[in-house]
Amino acid sequence: MNRKIVGRVIGALLVLEAVFMLPAMLLCVADGDSAAALGFAGAVLIACLVGGVLLLLARQGVGSFYAQEGFVATALSWIIISLVGALPFWFSGAIPHFVDALFEIVSGFTTTGASILPEVESLPRGILLWRSFSHWLGGMGMLVFLLAVVPIARRGTGANIHLMRAESPGPSVGKLTPKLQNTALILYGIYMLLTALDVVFLLAGGMPLFDSLCTAFGTAGTGGFGIKNDSIAGYSPYLQTVTTVFMFLFGVNFSLYFLLLLRRWKDFFFDEELRLYAGVTFGAIAVITINIRGMFASLGEALHHAAFQVSSIITTTGFSTVDFDQWPSLSRGVLLILMCLGACAGSTGGGLKMARVLLLLKGFRRSLRQTLNPRRVQLVRVNGHPVAEDVLAGTNAYLAAYCALVVLSFLVVSVDGLSITTNLSAVIACFNNIGPGFEGVGAARNFGHYSDLSKLVLTLDMLLGRLEIFPLLILLSPHTWRKAG
Amino acid sequence: MNRKIVGRVIGALLVLEAVFMLPAMLLCVADGDSAAALGFAGAVLIACLVGGVLLLLARQGVGSFYAQEGFVATALSWIIISLVGALPFWFSGAIPHFVDALFEIVSGFTTTGASILPEVESLPRGILLWRSFSHWLGGMGMLVFLLAVVPIARRGTGANIHLMRAESPGPSVGKLTPKLQNTALILYGIYMLLTALDVVFLLAGGMPLFDSLCTAFGTAGTGGFGIKNDSIAGYSPYLQTVTTVFMFLFGVNFSLYFLLLLRRWKDFFFDEELRLYAGVTFGAIAVITINIRGMFASLGEALHHAAFQVSSIITTTGFSTVDFDQWPSLSRGVLLILMCLGACAGSTGGGLKMARVLLLLKGFRRSLRQTLNPRRVQLVRVNGHPVAEDVLAGTNAYLAAYCALVVLSFLVVSVDGLSITTNLSAVIACFNNIGPGFEGVGAARNFGHYSDLSKLVLTLDMLLGRLEIFPLLILLSPHTWRKAG
Repeated sequence: MNRKIVGRVIGALLVLEAVFMLPAMLLCVADGDSAAALGFAGAVLIACLVGGVLLLLARQGVGSFYAQEGFVATALSWIIISLVGALPFWFSGAIPHFVDALFEIVSGFTTTGASILPEVESLPRGILLWRSFSHWLGGMGMLVFLLAVVPIARRGTGANIHLMRAESPGPSVGKLTPKLQNTALILYGIYMLLTALDVVFLLAGGMPLFDSLCTAFGTAGTGGFGIKNDSIAGYSPYLQTVTTVFMFLFGVNFSLYFLLLLRRWKDFFFDEELRLYAGVTFGAIAVITINIRGMFASLGEALHHAAFQVSSIITTTGFSTVDFDQWPSLSRGVLLILMCLGACAGSTGGGLKMARVLLLLKGFRRSLRQTLNPRRVQLVRVNGHPVAEDVLAGTNAYLAAYCALVVLSFLVVSVDGLSITTNLSAVIACFNNIGPGFEGVGAARNFGHYSDLSKLVLTLDMLLGRLEIFPLLILLSPHTWRKAG
Repeated sequence: MNRKIVGRVIGALLVLEAVFMLPAMLLCVADGDSAAALGFAGAVLIACLVGGVLLLLARQGVGSFYAQEGFVATALSWIIISLVGALPFWFSGAIPHFVDALFEIVSGFTTTGASILPEVESLPRGILLWRSFSHWLGGMGMLVFLLAVVPIARRGTGANIHLMRAESPGPSVGKLTPKLQNTALILYGIYMLLTALDVVFLLAGGMPLFDSLCTAFGTAGTGGFGIKNDSIAGYSPYLQTVTTVFMFLFGVNFSLYFLLLLRRWKDFFFDEELRLYAGVTFGAIAVITINIRGMFASLGEALHHAAFQVSSIITTTGFSTVDFDQWPSLSRGVLLILMCLGACAGSTGGGLKMARVLLLLKGFRRSLRQTLNPRRVQLVRVNGHPVAEDVLAGTNAYLAAYCALVVLSFLVVSVDGLSITTNLSAVIACFNNIGPGFEGVGAARNFGHYSDLSKLVLTLDMLLGRLEIFPLLILLSPHTWRKAG
């Protein structure tokens, strides 16, 4: 275990987090919210102190850095960043119970958007900003941001690509450019540009600046924390439509936008994952529109809400314009399935990811063919290129681990005695980083009714889902620490 | 496509089915139930006619026979056997609607035990006997029975092993003896012996002969059709305990009993699948006993019902002594998970099978290790022997197909508008051949409320679950029929 580099990564991230807390702190000062401002100040101080000490202790780290260290550093840094990120909520008294504060900030960083707060409008604006901003930071990942700004390790050690792979979602992460720092810069550039566009469109619809920023952060990170108790329901249909479109856009693999910049139109439009994503989205909107037609005054209105909700759930954002828990079984069933599928790999969305669904289906078709012609070697191809066998095996292993962890979490959460639909949808909503589920954790409810144990399990599920299982399991594996001595 | 051999298999099975209907027909005659007796007579006539014609037409079939033909013959024969097997219910007027009759007999043959009947005690005894006997026939498989009695094709063509593989549950089916017919004979021998033992123990507890036979058939096939409206609740605790033990025994891989006969104790007791099966069973019983303790007068009574229900659900039998839908969330959650896991491969139980769970977990552990040490080749071992990569890939593909088909069925069934828990548990209960689910399809309810479309989807799910997906998909694949001309 290369403790020096791991320490340096975490130290740098803590200092970065302190910097990212400053806007929210300044807003508290400007609004005269002294308790909240002091809460932030305390958190900033702790982040700087711990981060500084780590950087000092680990300042001369060299040596090799393997995939294992990448996973461990990523998992550890997400946990530590979350513990520190929860402090402003706790210190300021906005969320008096630490487990709740931790749940809330992990829900933010993992872009889940599940909340333990029964209402949010009474919270200081600085707290709300930090809550929404955490979505934006977690969506693309603070580690990727760090890699874009300062290379953690010298080139050639492989440290940077291992870190990026561990934090980025999807079955296989590639470099867009030969230099990794440029890849990270390009991804963050596209991310900022799209976020800025979203803000502009929201401002154009008459939304106040603060609301626009927070909504755009929640949309860009596909997070779902709102600053209103009724989520997005109170905003105009134009603003809801803007959000529908941008949620969908943030669910697309960001590498594809890079292809657009390079004017490789064909590669963009013929991308199999994009086609599956768009196909499932539009199919689901059609089914739900027909199914909920009778609940709204016009077909247009039904389409509007169906499109918003599908876009919100498939990208695992979790915003809502209506209480979809009141919709008929078919629509709720479709949404429950979309929750598991998720958006594209390499987007800010969570879930299984369309790329994995594609690989699983193609892998199954291959198995079927192999049964019929055992002697012919069959390759799985995506976009015409053969997929490496270890990526396929990894995807299958991912599904198995996903099922096993959902089952285990569901069991622990069931101890609290809520309904099966509540518990199952709560676990699925947290694991896939969506936010609301059904019944007891529906769009009009919150996660505050669960016990501390269940909240911690769900918090862990959010992290497992965002980091895609492997990093946390490797961190917790005794195998990792046996060699650490 | 070797149509001759496929035709011969189906023809022989139809004649066999006619023979198997005779006991029920004779019981109807003895009871003076002329409508039911005529119903059976009509079905027997049709089975003999169609079967005879097929045998005549296909009498000189030779040539090669590949895995594909094995799957197609198995899938087709299960469908045709079910269509004919439903006729006595329909002709006799016991189940006036053909879709319902088909649902009921497929539920029987696939050992699901889900019923569309609101009550069964008013049915003629011959109908009840055929209903329970279908569990026994489907449990080990009529094709395997056929192979034990008459070899379908000459040795060396591979036809027999392909047929046996297609019908037998589990990720890999091996021969116990060099000659396949002997393997089939041994398996059926053990099956009959255990069933006879069960009958003896039930008779010893004072249960009438008819009840003992029907209950033993339902237990042996891990089916779950009862002959009382309250399933097993009305019988004495002794009879319930006998059933608990035998359900568990019929969930064990029958090849292991062969090891016992060979006195290979160590191989029996150290079998990893058996250990997982026993571990999960006893763990679940412990958790549920503690959870439902307060609902019963004594700890012993809670243990009694917990053991019965766990044994019934994990083996996918579906008998009940109490309405477990009234149990607390944790217990229902445990049962829902047991529904998906299922019993051992090579048993009469359904579900994913413990062998697959074991392979999935080991495959995931391997993937984790491979991530840490990409250069080291890692083997998955079960009972000390390395598992072939294509078995692992097939198991993973199975999980993917399983998830995809459950999701699709859940969607179609959701159109009827019942609750999410009802629909999800109905699909899981049918796909895993369990029987009762929760809420609308709970132990005290039935599947009669679904529309015909949903019933047909659930019927297909039962067949997909029993034949483990591949045969039916290969039958329905256009690829299969393109080459058939």
